[in-house]
Amino acid sequence: MSKFLTEKYSFIKPYTPGEQPKDKTLVKLNTNESPFPPSPKAIEAAAKAAQTLNLYSDPENTDLIDAIAENYGVAPSNVIAGNGSDEILAFCFQAFCDEKIPAFFADVTYGFYKVFAKLYGVEAKIIPLKDDFSICPEEYYNIGGTAFIANPNAPTGMTLSLEQIEGLLKSNPDNIIVIDEAYVDFGGESAIPLTKCYENLIVVQTFSKSRGLAGGRIGFAVANAELIADLKKIKYSYNPYNVGAMPQAAAAASMRDKEYFEKNRAEVIRVREMTVTELEKMGFTVLPSKANFIFARANKISGADYFKALRENGIIVRYFDAPRINEFVRISIGTQEQMQKLLSATKKILEERV
Amino acid sequence: MSKFLTEKYSFIKPYTPGEQPKDKTLVKLNTNESPFPPSPKAIEAAAKAAQTLNLYSDPENTDLIDAIAENYGVAPSNVIAGNGSDEILAFCFQAFCDEKIPAFFADVTYGFYKVFAKLYGVEAKIIPLKDDFSICPEEYYNIGGTAFIANPNAPTGMTLSLEQIEGLLKSNPDNIIVIDEAYVDFGGESAIPLTKCYENLIVVQTFSKSRGLAGGRIGFAVANAELIADLKKIKYSYNPYNVGAMPQAAAAASMRDKEYFEKNRAEVIRVREMTVTELEKMGFTVLPSKANFIFARANKISGADYFKALRENGIIVRYFDAPRINEFVRISIGTQEQMQKLLSATKKILEERV
Repeated sequence: MSKFLTEKYSFIKPYTPGEQPKDKTLVKLNTNESPFPPSPKAIEAAAKAAQTLNLYSDPENTDLIDAIAENYGVAPSNVIAGNGSDEILAFCFQAFCDEKIPAFFADVTYGFYKVFAKLYGVEAKIIPLKDDFSICPEEYYNIGGTAFIANPNAPTGMTLSLEQIEGLLKSNPDNIIVIDEAYVDFGGESAIPLTKCYENLIVVQTFSKSRGLAGGRIGFAVANAELIADLKKIKYSYNPYNVGAMPQAAAAASMRDKEYFEKNRAEVIRVREMTVTELEKMGFTVLPSKANFIFARANKISGADYFKALRENGIIVRYFDAPRINEFVRISIGTQEQMQKLLSATKKILEERV
Repeated sequence: MSKFLTEKYSFIKPYTPGEQPKDKTLVKLNTNESPFPPSPKAIEAAAKAAQTLNLYSDPENTDLIDAIAENYGVAPSNVIAGNGSDEILAFCFQAFCDEKIPAFFADVTYGFYKVFAKLYGVEAKIIPLKDDFSICPEEYYNIGGTAFIANPNAPTGMTLSLEQIEGLLKSNPDNIIVIDEAYVDFGGESAIPLTKCYENLIVVQTFSKSRGLAGGRIGFAVANAELIADLKKIKYSYNPYNVGAMPQAAAAASMRDKEYFEKNRAEVIRVREMTVTELEKMGFTVLPSKANFIFARANKISGADYFKALRENGIIVRYFDAPRINEFVRISIGTQEQMQKLLSATKKILEERV
């Protein structure tokens, strides 16, 4: 840290992303990526866009926003795209939180909410999950601030129903509710249709998971046109060209390749259910996941030991050394073959250590 | 604007980027893009990166940063990459300005500095250019804040010498000086070597102009390792994956293709000088430009009329309806052929109207 850094940022502790190992022989189940390559149509569109990169990208993201709007049956004015959903979430913190408007979120949820609150000088009001790790929607009723709810939640994979979300929206007419649906395509119900009825709802999604474009960095939000206009104001004051020409092209093509999307998400769900069944047979507790990851407790050995032992067997998962969840590991759902490796390694580890 | 937008952002007036026309038959000389396609090696690298976009991009930008560091003879710890140099500039405003540390910049300069100051609640201290549109470096001596100086300046194209910049750095041991070198490769002198001697200097550059990757969105900064660590703290608190896999690959390949870079920038300089000569023959005043654009006053007709007349002739340039500069237009340097079209149209316009 230099002597020049402003006081406000001196105390910031940045988000720690999951490891991106250089060793490509490792089985990488730690950052919830799709185990399948992007749609061939997305690859082709990106390669084509590369040829004219000397020109600026469309700052309006017109074609991409059209593709998203069409897919979800909303108007283009209901959509904003960003450089990953992290950027969209940052815009939400800037637009709808301040010194007087705190941010409400769970104790166990996406780690970035806490970091954004600190970055933008916003008070973080933590609402603990219930003992079973579910969210109690009533605790978000009539809050005096902006709520950030991951649905499915991370790293638990657990969901709120649309009825529960509606209850929350109705009880908060003067507060913004941000529903972060990074993982919704693996079994959750999207709240996007509710954006037509509720002026206080912002739904955030990403192309990084179910659409296989984590390295492309594209996220988006759907909301009523006024809220989108607010978010665009921040975007155009921060980085009008935030989404490059290649990601715009890749994401639009990916959104339009519905067959590929459906095939891959169905396979992830199938492999997840298989994995859960096998882990439970080995004595694991697995939270009910609707995401492309599972949150699992070995029971027979500690979370830290299981994490370390998997790594020694060439498998990386995610371990959070934090209260309430330090006996769990988060395992991304890979291909059938990758999960068979995880299961075999787990069997071996338990045999050796228990 | 919704009723939910926080007060602070209600009054923001976002930056207006130059028009990105859908009509591809127009001669586009309005956003200072390179008239040449990206390096074939950059196109190839980006297309290859597209194939594995299901995986997150390297949050450390290792290969890209190595390429930049090697090119400028600095260590990787002296470099940070961003989603366009706009993002890097935003990080600088966050890290090195606050309620107590104002931002100093010229009245006529890159329009985004003013927008960032507003976005981050920072006081903007405006230092007018001299009558000849040059920067008076002495006016930046011993300032109590952070200075943002575009060198070459935009939209004038005029430069400070390294000696002038050194004077400025020496007189400001407790203040950060940000030198924005978006256009430096077209005849300016880069201050990057000075980063080894001055702990208060940050040099910001972009791949958007001389390296032909405007649509890729890649910028970078060079400074001593402590300042870079400060900027990384903001980056990892905002968007650790801010630079996608495709732009990382394209930019690294582009930086390493020195032959292509040298050929194109030499051609831009040659065409610029030819254009200036011809415009001066027609009675124009052209500021002495070391950038890939020129700032020119027709004298015989008004700036607004010249801008409009060019547009009617299928040529887009940039016009700023602002005090001091509303008799000028900014003309990006295109290919020889594009500039011949500009010159012919100009001749015709002057014949018709004068």
